[in-house]
Amino acid sequence: MKSLFYFIAIALIALNTEAQNHEQKIKSIYDHQLTESPVYENLRYLCKEIGNRLSGSPQAAAAVEYTKQLMESYGFDTVYLQPVMVPHWVRGDKEVVRVTNSKKFGTLELNSLALGNSVGTGPEGILRNVIEVKNIEALKKLGKKVEGKIVFINTKMDPTLINNFDAYGGAVVTRAYGASEAGKFGAKAVIVRSVTNRLDDIPHTGSLVYKPLMPQIPAVALSTKDAEKLSAMIKDQKDLQVYFRTTSQMLPDVLSYNVIGEIKGSTNPDEIIVVGGHLDSWDVGEGAHDDGGGCMMSIEVGRTFIELGITPKRTLRVVMFINEENGLRGGKKYAQVAKEKGEKTIAALESDSGSFFPEGYTMTGTEAQRNKVKSWKPLFLKYGLYDFDQIGSGADISPLEDQGPLLMELLPNTQKYFIYHHTDADIFEAVDKRELELGAAAMTSMVYLIDQEGI
Amino acid sequence: MKSLFYFIAIALIALNTEAQNHEQKIKSIYDHQLTESPVYENLRYLCKEIGNRLSGSPQAAAAVEYTKQLMESYGFDTVYLQPVMVPHWVRGDKEVVRVTNSKKFGTLELNSLALGNSVGTGPEGILRNVIEVKNIEALKKLGKKVEGKIVFINTKMDPTLINNFDAYGGAVVTRAYGASEAGKFGAKAVIVRSVTNRLDDIPHTGSLVYKPLMPQIPAVALSTKDAEKLSAMIKDQKDLQVYFRTTSQMLPDVLSYNVIGEIKGSTNPDEIIVVGGHLDSWDVGEGAHDDGGGCMMSIEVGRTFIELGITPKRTLRVVMFINEENGLRGGKKYAQVAKEKGEKTIAALESDSGSFFPEGYTMTGTEAQRNKVKSWKPLFLKYGLYDFDQIGSGADISPLEDQGPLLMELLPNTQKYFIYHHTDADIFEAVDKRELELGAAAMTSMVYLIDQEGI
Repeated sequence: MKSLFYFIAIALIALNTEAQNHEQKIKSIYDHQLTESPVYENLRYLCKEIGNRLSGSPQAAAAVEYTKQLMESYGFDTVYLQPVMVPHWVRGDKEVVRVTNSKKFGTLELNSLALGNSVGTGPEGILRNVIEVKNIEALKKLGKKVEGKIVFINTKMDPTLINNFDAYGGAVVTRAYGASEAGKFGAKAVIVRSVTNRLDDIPHTGSLVYKPLMPQIPAVALSTKDAEKLSAMIKDQKDLQVYFRTTSQMLPDVLSYNVIGEIKGSTNPDEIIVVGGHLDSWDVGEGAHDDGGGCMMSIEVGRTFIELGITPKRTLRVVMFINEENGLRGGKKYAQVAKEKGEKTIAALESDSGSFFPEGYTMTGTEAQRNKVKSWKPLFLKYGLYDFDQIGSGADISPLEDQGPLLMELLPNTQKYFIYHHTDADIFEAVDKRELELGAAAMTSMVYLIDQEGI
Repeated sequence: MKSLFYFIAIALIALNTEAQNHEQKIKSIYDHQLTESPVYENLRYLCKEIGNRLSGSPQAAAAVEYTKQLMESYGFDTVYLQPVMVPHWVRGDKEVVRVTNSKKFGTLELNSLALGNSVGTGPEGILRNVIEVKNIEALKKLGKKVEGKIVFINTKMDPTLINNFDAYGGAVVTRAYGASEAGKFGAKAVIVRSVTNRLDDIPHTGSLVYKPLMPQIPAVALSTKDAEKLSAMIKDQKDLQVYFRTTSQMLPDVLSYNVIGEIKGSTNPDEIIVVGGHLDSWDVGEGAHDDGGGCMMSIEVGRTFIELGITPKRTLRVVMFINEENGLRGGKKYAQVAKEKGEKTIAALESDSGSFFPEGYTMTGTEAQRNKVKSWKPLFLKYGLYDFDQIGSGADISPLEDQGPLLMELLPNTQKYFIYHHTDADIFEAVDKRELELGAAAMTSMVYLIDQEGI
């Protein structure tokens, strides 16, 4: 029996030493990020020197080149471009949404942004009566009564939901499908309320999706203050008219790229860990929280491994996905190629919920995979990462799901994301340096543990 | 035995119903705060219509009157003023810290703020050689070598500490005691580095404490960027001189007040629950995070009880403490009066760590008290309140400690507090509406449970 106890003791000491090693390594990752990280300066460059970067734009091409060079400069083993054909939507002239006959205001311009993928009105614009509904269900009840009109779908985010992504999920269907649903009943155009809890003058763009075989009508989002104003005017005045003009259009697809940087695994090179964010953004603001920060954090994972001399056991692949915003072509292409090559992706971690204070990780995977990650929670608590219970993954990595990896997303505090999301306010200055560094450290630490322990 | 099981079952059902009641009540508190709360508008009034409010200032008197009227308007049972004599320090003219003989820059003005309670230089100012040390220990080693000079104590916050209050605690001793320690060795004035992790142009004021029987010399804080600049100039040039002028002075004490609003307990009126923040601020910015938000959240506790028809069992006392910043006279007076009257304070909850996203509560009390609060943690997790393990209490309620209550402080995320702390940047716009509302809901919910369950 003595020898059994002996081996158990040795095993326990080994386990304990392993845990201490992990604790020290994670501390060194955090210390490094909080004192010497280039992540904030890299985000500044992306935001200020390149700017916003909608799929198909010259700026998107610049961002591909920038992140490729960045990973090369950090000494990744391989950096390469994965070709992807992406949609090429252009906004055209500044949108006009103008109330023309208000008894109270006369003519009134409203703050608006055309929704991404929307068709235009043609250069002459349209002038029509406007009718308000609360949501798509209410629109369906009105049915043919909206024919020939502009439909204003004034769906609010629910402020009582603590997780703002839950509230977003409830409201965003209006933005995504409102145009198709209204077009089906013969409406001429759609106005939606911007998807944010904040009452302000900033309109929020974002994708609409035209359902197949339905009429395609143009759609814009109003700022929340102007949505309130329009709603009040409609209540006062049944014959209210709106002049509506957008010249946005979808051009032919353009060749673009996912940018992939790889560090080869030393003992299990065939097992791949993916970490990434999406490189494209909307064509407003600077795409700082969405998703410049997620991209720069992901590059930090690889750079920090190299800088701290951590040799990965598995192959670490940092991916800048293209075209999350209006097509997800990059994420789909990456998963398709991985499947064709028969690659074994064991885990994928995305950051696409803003560069706010990180509170945990969402997960989609088997119970065994999730429990393994949860067993590491004590290593993360001191850094404020406490929430390992939410289901979820990033949009770009979600097409990998049927290949069996654990899918994860960094989970930052959700309170402020929808202040900035898809607006002119999503600029470099909206990102806090320490919060970005803490995000990069949280991403790196999680990838470190998955690499060392497997999943 | 059947009857025993019966009673156990009844008891379990009762417990379960109680827990469900609490869960529903807390949800109603959160829903109310997130949809109908006046807390953000009240903070706007305090910040924009009254402004900063250093003890002894006319604005401090206005804030006393405003919060008294506010609690009266909400229907508190009693609202009264508790007289407190407070120190009356005035900043005088805009501070001057000017490098006069830089080889590189010639004359250079540095961004500075006199430290609170500091004496002035006299109207003529002083011109002296400047010598840099890293901290008070290094100053003590130099000893008499600083005689006749201006000492620059360039103590940095440690960026690797995740809790920014820990890093503040390590650095703030320089601000508090640097002047006394340097004065002891014959230095003529002290310059400290602002206590913040951020590198910017904003100087941070805050209290210094003159030790008894030591020479009192003037002290200012430099912005971190200018601290770096001054440090670089000193390294380049041993004979660097600084012209230093402040006309700040301590005037005679002034009569001021704690503002106290009370809602009488229905079944245990002698048991008192205190909730509060400090009404005074520094004489820069608007005292929004420090501590206007804490005051307005505290008033919300009482208002929300009244609005939602929650009759407290214990007596709820909302206290606007005066003079936390440069004397703690309000907190001391409140505790002294409570002791003299033989009051039974069972718990005190303060908010004085900024109006950022609330993550938990710090506690100072017996293990039994703390365990009781920790048993409620499942009710709070869905609101993001997960950290019930930190020791701590607010400064204003700390003088109550020897009277045996559980002392608590709301624990918001700590990453951004020291960007704004004691600066011109601590204005209303730096506070997020939802985060303020979530703080008010967290304070109200905790007071609700303590009131219903006892402690």
